[in-house]
Amino acid sequence: MQQIKQDFPPASRRLRLGFVGGGQGALIGEVHANGARLSNRWDIVAGALSSNPQRAQASGKAWMLDDDRIYSDYQDMAQKEAARADGIEAVSIVTPNHLHAPIAKAFMDVGIDIISDKPLTTSLEEAQSLAKAQARSGVVFGVTYAYSAHIMVRQAQAMVRRGDLGDIRQIHVEYFQDWAMNVTDQGENAPWRLDVAKNGPSFTVGDIGTHAEHLARFVSGLSIEAVRADFHVTGKPKALEDTAFMQLSFAGDVPGTLMVSQAMAGSQCGLRLRVCGTKASLEWHQEQPEILHLRAIGAAEQIISRGHDAGMIADTQRLLRMPRGHPEALTDAWANLYLELAVAVQARREGRALPKDLLAYPTIADGVEGMRFVEAAIVSNATDAWVFCA
Amino acid sequence: MQQIKQDFPPASRRLRLGFVGGGQGALIGEVHANGARLSNRWDIVAGALSSNPQRAQASGKAWMLDDDRIYSDYQDMAQKEAARADGIEAVSIVTPNHLHAPIAKAFMDVGIDIISDKPLTTSLEEAQSLAKAQARSGVVFGVTYAYSAHIMVRQAQAMVRRGDLGDIRQIHVEYFQDWAMNVTDQGENAPWRLDVAKNGPSFTVGDIGTHAEHLARFVSGLSIEAVRADFHVTGKPKALEDTAFMQLSFAGDVPGTLMVSQAMAGSQCGLRLRVCGTKASLEWHQEQPEILHLRAIGAAEQIISRGHDAGMIADTQRLLRMPRGHPEALTDAWANLYLELAVAVQARREGRALPKDLLAYPTIADGVEGMRFVEAAIVSNATDAWVFCA
Amino acid sequence: MQQIKQDFPPASRRLRLGFVGGGQGALIGEVHANGARLSNRWDIVAGALSSNPQRAQASGKAWMLDDDRIYSDYQDMAQKEAARADGIEAVSIVTPNHLHAPIAKAFMDVGIDIISDKPLTTSLEEAQSLAKAQARSGVVFGVTYAYSAHIMVRQAQAMVRRGDLGDIRQIHVEYFQDWAMNVTDQGENAPWRLDVAKNGPSFTVGDIGTHAEHLARFVSGLSIEAVRADFHVTGKPKALEDTAFMQLSFAGDVPGTLMVSQAMAGSQCGLRLRVCGTKASLEWHQEQPEILHLRAIGAAEQIISRGHDAGMIADTQRLLRMPRGHPEALTDAWANLYLELAVAVQARREGRALPKDLLAYPTIADGVEGMRFVEAAIVSNATDAWVFCA
Amino acid sequence: MQQIKQDFPPASRRLRLGFVGGGQGALIGEVHANGARLSNRWDIVAGALSSNPQRAQASGKAWMLDDDRIYSDYQDMAQKEAARADGIEAVSIVTPNHLHAPIAKAFMDVGIDIISDKPLTTSLEEAQSLAKAQARSGVVFGVTYAYSAHIMVRQAQAMVRRGDLGDIRQIHVEYFQDWAMNVTDQGENAPWRLDVAKNGPSFTVGDIGTHAEHLARFVSGLSIEAVRADFHVTGKPKALEDTAFMQLSFAGDVPGTLMVSQAMAGSQCGLRLRVCGTKASLEWHQEQPEILHLRAIGAAEQIISRGHDAGMIADTQRLLRMPRGHPEALTDAWANLYLELAVAVQARREGRALPKDLLAYPTIADGVEGMRFVEAAIVSNATDAWVFCA
Repeated sequence: MQQIKQDFPPASRRLRLGFVGGGQGALIGEVHANGARLSNRWDIVAGALSSNPQRAQASGKAWMLDDDRIYSDYQDMAQKEAARADGIEAVSIVTPNHLHAPIAKAFMDVGIDIISDKPLTTSLEEAQSLAKAQARSGVVFGVTYAYSAHIMVRQAQAMVRRGDLGDIRQIHVEYFQDWAMNVTDQGENAPWRLDVAKNGPSFTVGDIGTHAEHLARFVSGLSIEAVRADFHVTGKPKALEDTAFMQLSFAGDVPGTLMVSQAMAGSQCGLRLRVCGTKASLEWHQEQPEILHLRAIGAAEQIISRGHDAGMIADTQRLLRMPRGHPEALTDAWANLYLELAVAVQARREGRALPKDLLAYPTIADGVEGMRFVEAAIVSNATDAWVFCA
Repeated sequence: MQQIKQDFPPASRRLRLGFVGGGQGALIGEVHANGARLSNRWDIVAGALSSNPQRAQASGKAWMLDDDRIYSDYQDMAQKEAARADGIEAVSIVTPNHLHAPIAKAFMDVGIDIISDKPLTTSLEEAQSLAKAQARSGVVFGVTYAYSAHIMVRQAQAMVRRGDLGDIRQIHVEYFQDWAMNVTDQGENAPWRLDVAKNGPSFTVGDIGTHAEHLARFVSGLSIEAVRADFHVTGKPKALEDTAFMQLSFAGDVPGTLMVSQAMAGSQCGLRLRVCGTKASLEWHQEQPEILHLRAIGAAEQIISRGHDAGMIADTQRLLRMPRGHPEALTDAWANLYLELAVAVQARREGRALPKDLLAYPTIADGVEGMRFVEAAIVSNATDAWVFCA
Repeated sequence: MQQIKQDFPPASRRLRLGFVGGGQGALIGEVHANGARLSNRWDIVAGALSSNPQRAQASGKAWMLDDDRIYSDYQDMAQKEAARADGIEAVSIVTPNHLHAPIAKAFMDVGIDIISDKPLTTSLEEAQSLAKAQARSGVVFGVTYAYSAHIMVRQAQAMVRRGDLGDIRQIHVEYFQDWAMNVTDQGENAPWRLDVAKNGPSFTVGDIGTHAEHLARFVSGLSIEAVRADFHVTGKPKALEDTAFMQLSFAGDVPGTLMVSQAMAGSQCGLRLRVCGTKASLEWHQEQPEILHLRAIGAAEQIISRGHDAGMIADTQRLLRMPRGHPEALTDAWANLYLELAVAVQARREGRALPKDLLAYPTIADGVEGMRFVEAAIVSNATDAWVFCA
Repeated sequence: MQQIKQDFPPASRRLRLGFVGGGQGALIGEVHANGARLSNRWDIVAGALSSNPQRAQASGKAWMLDDDRIYSDYQDMAQKEAARADGIEAVSIVTPNHLHAPIAKAFMDVGIDIISDKPLTTSLEEAQSLAKAQARSGVVFGVTYAYSAHIMVRQAQAMVRRGDLGDIRQIHVEYFQDWAMNVTDQGENAPWRLDVAKNGPSFTVGDIGTHAEHLARFVSGLSIEAVRADFHVTGKPKALEDTAFMQLSFAGDVPGTLMVSQAMAGSQCGLRLRVCGTKASLEWHQEQPEILHLRAIGAAEQIISRGHDAGMIADTQRLLRMPRGHPEALTDAWANLYLELAVAVQARREGRALPKDLLAYPTIADGVEGMRFVEAAIVSNATDAWVFCA
C-alpha cells in the first residue's frame, strides 16, 4: 500500500448549510442534499427552496427545517442567516442558471461560502464579473462538476500525472442523453433550459457540454485552447441546439473531439472520456464509474477497479467509503465534493492553510472556463471557423 | 409509468439511533452509519463503539457524539438511553457474531428497536431463542442483508412474482471473494471470524453464504428445503472452511447450487444470482448492481437498468435517489434499508399499521432462516448426505 | 515476441478426407467440413453422408463429390476407398453415438485414420474396446472436442503450465443451453439424443457435460478422480436428464463443480471455465472465445486477447489465422483441429516422428475418459454417493 | 421463423480463382484465401503471388499451386490463364494500392472477373477511369470491404430499412488502431502505405477511413454529401496523417462524425458504428461482431445476437455457417463475401439474372465512392472548410 500524503483535518462538528432552490420536483436539490448528508460534514438547516411561498413551506417541512429558517426570498435568507449566531456557513445554489450570479453575490456580501451548480452563469461576462466579486470577498466558491469527484476519475488524473500514458496525443469525450428527443420549447411544459432568458444562449453545450469539457481538462491536465463546433437539432424542433459535435485543440496542440447530444435515442447518461498517450490510453464511463480501462501498446487491457491495492493512487484512499468490490456511485462522488468543500470552508473560517493538492473540487475558475468554452462554441458554430478560448 | 401503490408515510423529524460496535478500524460500522445518514431518517446520537474505553472515546468523538452519550459498555448504554427523554429509538449492532444476541436482548428489554448485522447469532438455537424474545418484546428487528435492498434486486423479485420467468426451474447463486486466501487462524492478527467462540462454527458459509442464501430466497420467493454441502479450505490452512459448494433443493423440488469462497484469487465481491424459469432467466451481479440481465427463450437478451420507464416495477420508485443513468450503488442499498427500518420504527412508536408489502427489509425470521441453513450445511458436510432445513 | 518452438512440417498436397454422416439437415457435418476446408489441408472427396440412398445422393451432390464416391453404406465405402489408389486417408464420423464405434472399426480395419465426433460411444465398455482396436491398428484417432482448439484455450493451458496461477485450488465449469427446454422424447420429432439405443444412457451429461469435462481437464492439466452428481429434468418431461449439477474432485484433492443444462432458458452455448490458483484465476467463455480474463490477487483484472504480444504464448502463433483485433471464432477452432489432425495423419503415412507437444488435438484416450466420466456421473446420481473415475 | 426470400442458386462445381499479390509475409492474401476456401465455392489454382520470382515460387508452392500456374508477372498470368481451357474465372488483387487499377485492367481485358482489395486506387480520377473500363467490359467487380459481410452488419442494415430506428438523426463511426504509433516513413522498413507513390496521398483515411465510410453508408443507407476533416499525426513523425477527425453531412442533412487513428495506443481494430434514429439507436463493434446493441427510448437495452429467432432478419439465414451461440467471426465475413462473389461470377458466366437484393457485396461503385470521400477529406483538411462529395 502506498502512503497517503495527508489526511483531511478532523472535524469537531458539522457545518451549517443552506439551500436556495431545490424545492419539490427539483431533482438536483435532493442530489446535492444527499451528498451533503452522506459526507457527514454538513447539517442542512435553512432554505429558500422555492420563490413560491407555499412551495417553499412545503419543501422546507419535507426537509425537516425549522419553521423560522424556511424562506421564500433568498435576499431575506442571506440577511437573516448572516445575523444569526447559528447562521449558515455555506449556501448551495440550485436554481436556474440566470439566478446563480445574483444569489451568489447576495450571500458573498454577507460572508457566506458558496456552492453553485453549473453552468456558472448565462454568459462569460457575467461569470467573469462574479469571479471578480468572489476574489474580493475571499469566500470559498465551489462549482459542482460532480463527476470529477468520483474516486476513479481522481485515479485517472493521477495516472496521467505520473506518466502512465506517456505524452498525451489525443482526447475524446462524449456525453449522450435522450431526454430532450421529444421535448420542444413551445407550450407551458417547456423546460426552463430551453428559455434563453433563464438558461443562456446554449442548451446542450451549456448543460452537459460543460461537464464533458471539465472532465477532459480535469483528467488530462490540459486546457482547451481552440474549438471548432457544429450545433444541431436532432430531436424535436427547438430554437436552441440539442446536439453539438466539436473538434478541440488542447494545450500543446493535442487534438481532440467532443460530442454531446440530449436527443440520442436510448442513451441515458453516456458520459465517456478517452485520454490517449504515446504509451497507453485510459477510458472512463460515467455509467460504470468504478472501472478504468487502461490499454497500453503491446499489453493486455487492464480493468482497474476501485480498491485494488495494485495500481490505485494512495491519495484517493482518504475518500473511500466502501471496501473493494462493494460499489460506490454518484452519491459518493457528490459526498466527496461536499466533504472537500467542508474541509475548505472549515479551514477558511479557522484561518488555517491547507496543503496544496489536498483538495480537488472545481472552483469558480472552472466555472468561468466553462462559460468561455460555451461562448467559443457558439461563435464557432455561427462563423464555421475555429475560435480560440483564451 | 405504472402507479406506485403507496408512498412512505412522511416524517416530521429524524429518529434517534445508537450504535454498539463499529469503532475505529471497524469498517462495517461506517457502512451502517452512512446508510443511516443518507436515508435522512436518522440522527446518530449515541454509541458504545468499542468495549475498550479509550477507543470508544476516540471513535465517539470522530462520530461527533456528545460526550455524555459515548459509552464503552452496552448494558450501561441501554439503561441510560432508555432513561433519557431524548434517548435512542433504535440501536445498530455491529459487533462480532457472539455478541449480537446478548446485546439485542439488553436493548429489547428496555423497548429499543433493533438493527442487527448478520449472521444473526453463532447457532440456530441461540437464534431461535432470540426470535422468541423478540416476539415477546414486540420490537422492530431488522437484519442487514443489505444486498436485498438494491432497487434492481427488488425489481428482480417483482419480475419473478409477476411471472416474467414462468415457473422457476433452477436457481444458482455464488459469492466469491479472495481476502482470506492468505489468512490463517494462527497469530495475533487472526481475524475474529476464524475464532469459533466469537464467530460460530462456520466461517465462509456463515459470513457470505448467508448473504447468498438470503438473496436466492428473497428473489425467487422459494424456501430452501434441503442442502448437500461440501466444505473446503482452498486458501492457507485454517480450521474452519473458506470455501463451500452445495446442491440445494428449493420448495417445489426446484434444484439449485450455491458456491462460496473467500479464497478465490482475484474475486472481490462476486455475488451473482441466476434464477431460471420456463420462459426466461434473470441474472444479477453485486458488482454491477444497477443492471439485470433478462434472457428469454427465443428473444434478444435485455439489459434492464434502473430508471427505464419500460419494465421497471413502479413500487421501486419510492426508493429512487438518483435519476436514470446516474448510478446508485451499495450505500444507496444501505440507505434503502435504513429508510424502511425508520418507517417501521416510526410506525411502531406511533401505533400505526402499515400496508402489507410496503416494506421488504429482512427480519429476525430471515436471520433465523440463515442460521438454519448454516447448521444444515455443517451437518451435510460432516455426514456427506442431504440434510433438511425445516 | 517469444520464440515459437517449432512450426508444422510443410505440406505438398492436401490429404483426402471422407465423411460418414453429415447429410442434409445434419448441422455438425457442415461444421466439420468447414473446419477441414479452412485448414487448407484436406480435400473432401468421398462420403456416405446418409444411410438413406436418396439423401446420400442429394447430400453428396451438394458437397460436389464425384458420383462414384457417393456412398450410402459405410462398409461399402470403407472397402472401395481402401481399394482406390486415390482413396481417402482419413474419415470423419458424424453419426449418432451408437454408430461411432462400428464405423470407426470398419475404417481402422482398412488402415484409414479416424476423426470421430463425441461422445466417443454409448458406453465405457464400448469405448475401451474401441481404444484397444485403435491401439492394435495404429491409426491416428482424433475426437472433436473442438473448444479445446481455440487459441485462447491453448493460451489458458499454457498459462496454467507456466505457473501464472500458482497452485490450482478450485475449478468451475458450466455449460448451459436452452434448446431442450420444450423438447420431449415422445412423438416422431423426438431427437435421437433422447433415444437411449442411439444415444446411450445419458442425454445432457454425455452431449455437453463431456465438453465441459474435457475443457476443464485440458486447461487445468488435472484428471477428474471422483464425481458426485445429481441429475434433473428442468425442461419438459423426458426419460433422460436435461440438467445435472456435480461436485468434482480433481487430482491432488482440488475441488470443483460442473453444471450443465440444456433447459436453462435464454442460454445459447454458455460454456464457461474458471480455473483458480493461489495467485490468480483464469476465466474463459465459449461465446467470447478471443478473450481470457486473468484476475490476480491485488492486481487489476487483465483482459488478454488473441494477438497481444505481451502475454501470448508463442506456441499458439502457429495457429494464428487473423491478425490481432480481427476476431477468430469457432470455425477457426475446428480448422485448428483439422490442421493438427492433418499433420498427424501425414506424419503417420510418411513414418515421420513429430516433436512432443507439437499437437494437442483430443485423442481416443480423451474419448474414453469422457465415457468414464459419464458412467461415474450416472452411478453417482443413482446412488447419491461419490463415485471414483479411475 | 420468418421466410427467407430466396436461397443462392446451387453450384455444381467450384470456380477457379487466381491471386495477384499475397505472397509470403503478406497477411491480407491469406485472409482472402481463407475466405475463398471456407466459402467452398472457389479453388485457388493460379497466382502471381509476388513480382519477385523466387518469392513467387516459394509462395506458390506453399499454396500448393501447380508449377505451371505460378507466375511472377501479372500480365503473363492474365494472358496464359485466359488461354487455358481451365483458366481462372476470377482474380483477387491484394497488392499495394497503385497496382490495383493496372492489374484489374489487365484481367478485365481478357474477361476475367475481379475481386480487389481497398482502397480501390490511389486517386479518384484513377478510380473513375477504372469504373468506366469495368462498365465497358461487363465483368463482375467486387471490392473487399469485408466488415459489411458480417451477418450482424447485414442485420443492422435490415433493421434500419424496416424502420426499427425511426428516422435517422445522427451517425457516428470510429476506427482506432495503434500499429502506426511508432512507425515512421524513414528507413528501409517503412511500410509501403507511407509511400505516396504506392499508397496515394492519404494514409489512414485511405486505409481504414474508407472502411468506416463504407460501413456507415452500408448500414444507414445514406450517402455522405459533405465532409469537414482535420488530419493529424499523433504517432511518430510521418509525412502522411495517421489520425483524422471529421464532421460529416449525410443525405437529408443528417449530421455525423468519423474518427480514425492508427496511432491510438492500446486499440487493435476498434471499428465501432452508431446509427441513431428518432426511436432507437444501434451500435456495432468489429471486435464483437456477433452482437448488436439496440437502445430504444424508454425501453431496456437489447443485445441482439446472431441466431436468435426473435428479431433476426430472415435474409441473413442463407449466410449462416454456425448454429446460434457458436460464434462466427471475421473469416466467416470474408467467406460470405467470396460466396456472394461466386454467385455473381457464376451467374454472369451462365448468363443468368439474379434477383435484386440477393447479393450485397461492395462493388466498384463503392470503391469509387471511397476515393471520392478520401479526396474530399484531403481538400477539407487543406482548406479548413466543408467539401462536398458529389
